[in-house]
Amino acid sequence: MSEVLQTCGEAKAAAPAIASAPAARRNAALEAMADALDASHDAVLAANAEDVDSARAEGVSPALVDRLTLTPARLSDMADALRQLVGLTDPVGQVVRGFTLPNGLDVRQVRVPLGVIAMVYEGRPNVTVDAAGLAIKSGNACVLRGSRTAIRSNTALAEVLRGALQSQGLPAEAISLITDTSRDSVKELGRARGLVDLLIPRGGAGLIQSVVEDSSVPVIETGVGNCHVYVDRAADLAKARAIVVNAKTHRPSVCNAAETLLVHRDVAAEFLPDVVDALVEAGVELRGDTTAQELATMGPATPEDWDTEYLDLVMAVRVVEGFDDALGHIAAHGTLHTEAIVTEDRAAARAFVAAVDAAAVMVNASTRFTDGGEFGFGAEIGISTQKLHARGPMALTELTTTKYIVEGDGQVRR
Amino acid sequence: MSEVLQTCGEAKAAAPAIASAPAARRNAALEAMADALDASHDAVLAANAEDVDSARAEGVSPALVDRLTLTPARLSDMADALRQLVGLTDPVGQVVRGFTLPNGLDVRQVRVPLGVIAMVYEGRPNVTVDAAGLAIKSGNACVLRGSRTAIRSNTALAEVLRGALQSQGLPAEAISLITDTSRDSVKELGRARGLVDLLIPRGGAGLIQSVVEDSSVPVIETGVGNCHVYVDRAADLAKARAIVVNAKTHRPSVCNAAETLLVHRDVAAEFLPDVVDALVEAGVELRGDTTAQELATMGPATPEDWDTEYLDLVMAVRVVEGFDDALGHIAAHGTLHTEAIVTEDRAAARAFVAAVDAAAVMVNASTRFTDGGEFGFGAEIGISTQKLHARGPMALTELTTTKYIVEGDGQVRR
Repeated sequence: MSEVLQTCGEAKAAAPAIASAPAARRNAALEAMADALDASHDAVLAANAEDVDSARAEGVSPALVDRLTLTPARLSDMADALRQLVGLTDPVGQVVRGFTLPNGLDVRQVRVPLGVIAMVYEGRPNVTVDAAGLAIKSGNACVLRGSRTAIRSNTALAEVLRGALQSQGLPAEAISLITDTSRDSVKELGRARGLVDLLIPRGGAGLIQSVVEDSSVPVIETGVGNCHVYVDRAADLAKARAIVVNAKTHRPSVCNAAETLLVHRDVAAEFLPDVVDALVEAGVELRGDTTAQELATMGPATPEDWDTEYLDLVMAVRVVEGFDDALGHIAAHGTLHTEAIVTEDRAAARAFVAAVDAAAVMVNASTRFTDGGEFGFGAEIGISTQKLHARGPMALTELTTTKYIVEGDGQVRR
Repeated sequence: MSEVLQTCGEAKAAAPAIASAPAARRNAALEAMADALDASHDAVLAANAEDVDSARAEGVSPALVDRLTLTPARLSDMADALRQLVGLTDPVGQVVRGFTLPNGLDVRQVRVPLGVIAMVYEGRPNVTVDAAGLAIKSGNACVLRGSRTAIRSNTALAEVLRGALQSQGLPAEAISLITDTSRDSVKELGRARGLVDLLIPRGGAGLIQSVVEDSSVPVIETGVGNCHVYVDRAADLAKARAIVVNAKTHRPSVCNAAETLLVHRDVAAEFLPDVVDALVEAGVELRGDTTAQELATMGPATPEDWDTEYLDLVMAVRVVEGFDDALGHIAAHGTLHTEAIVTEDRAAARAFVAAVDAAAVMVNASTRFTDGGEFGFGAEIGISTQKLHARGPMALTELTTTKYIVEGDGQVRR
């Protein structure tokens, strides 16, 4: 049997023990995981140093090396994140709805863990800890398949977390790491029907696309965000400038950063030179359509730019003919993540909110607010850009399903 | 372009008009669809007669011919079902939750249509009308792919429904029928990413399995139900008999019918002869394990029987060593649909409910109650046996997704 199937089978076998563990024990396990992390800096940092050395030797880019690198401070942050989970409301056992049928049957729809959650992710070892913590908090077992570059770090982290689980009388297999980092292992994970209840790919568009195409287990797509800010004719231009600069530059490498600026032609001449100055000052490279290039200093945009999630200090700019043109552009190029309008026109705001198909629609606010932490959900495992099960920030609730419990005293159907 | 992609593209283009239509207009469309059906008996029945003739000529089984056959009464029932949808609560626009963030942003999570719902189904033409009605009620466009045997009936029905949509100023393409009934058309539908928001296969296990394996669009599995009734040591045997007989014989051809009876060894000698008499009297063929065969008259069960959804007057019987043995059998052979325990022992009931992984768990009630109509949901598109998005009876709410609407006055992220 392959490592993937064996690991998934072990996780599946461990899942009932996690699902049936009372919240107090799952929380104790999270505390133990945090404490164990704090006590294991030396071992984890040593393993990570080997990963970092290999990555450098292979010529991995400095940005990726930075994502890979662990420090005592980063490890402490990871432990703190585990401790913060303890304080969050337990989703397991919540009664979503309940009613009594005319025949006297009592029906309750109750929140229960999914079972086994698998994650496929790229070079950031903190995902190992985040995902494991969210899984345990929500009563699930997890199967983790990180990248080859981080394999030593992930192995060390998983060992620490598994030991902590065992110390609380829970099965270590509820946190299982797949060490086979070949492409085939992802494919096999996506085909492990009956063993994997949910597969979440977390990473670039290419990884997500291939997981979606190849999987027969349920998948939730996360995080590809080609987000737009549309500055309407009726925008307050000072608000618009602040929102555009924030959406683009606050943290350009994440999915809720804006990638394209759409400006209504009636305000373009006034707005563009001003916002471009601010963006350039913040280090942003701009690529515009012909009209935008005439109104402010920037390079030309190619058709590919409208579909590119730069995840960098680059922004595409288009002057649109009007509201409908903006909607059309977003419908053609958006990724159903987050779209923003800046306007003081109530009718335009309502129409935008109604027409735009996205997980989150912002009116006079930065795209950066689409975030589980910002929404007050406490923790998130990603931003779902699909429509089924979960849309937008996915927190603990989204890592559960429900079951109907029907209690009677002998009722049969007439 | 293939018919499938063209049809899906037309439905996708029509979806915003349905999504943005107020409930009053969608309800008027449902009324118009019902009236048009009532006025089109001749045309639909003539088309159906051709389908029935062809099916008979091809030697299709009488049961399948019966499912295929339309009558004036069945057409009236279909129209009535459309009218009943009118009275149900509109899911679109419901605010699922709403809150104000510390920075003053107002966040609302609002229920919105999914977009395009595709259905793949077998020989029953009423699914064409049911699915179209549920889609329009929930603000969605639909793409319908029925079976070859029913193609003339489905074409006639779709034409009637599309005309009714148009009469209410809604695009006919919101109800689109795929006339290509090759296997490839199902595959292509399952690969129509960006055009199909949800694909629901409705039919036998083979159809569902192939759709799940081959699709990259989101799929919800429905309806495979290898349901068990477990008669516990502490069962009230009179209740148990009524429940077993009802679960097996009330409507054996549907997914929530029971297929296997598990009896605790301590009550098997008393219970089995009695229940077997009642089942045999109702025309049920029984297939038991060795112990069951010793206690009552029945044929032998093979290992395949434990995994067979008979959908017929056949029932497998096993005497289990105890509660855990029953749980183990259900875990090994259940299809996550509906499982029932009959017991007066509160602890056993609680343990069963907690341990069994299924969409619905019954205590002292027939498995037949897992049903949207019985639960009071008014209408259902199927019983989901998967854990994501929807579990158990899928009604109007499950045909929607949500979007977050965030309104501010210039907030940026700090």
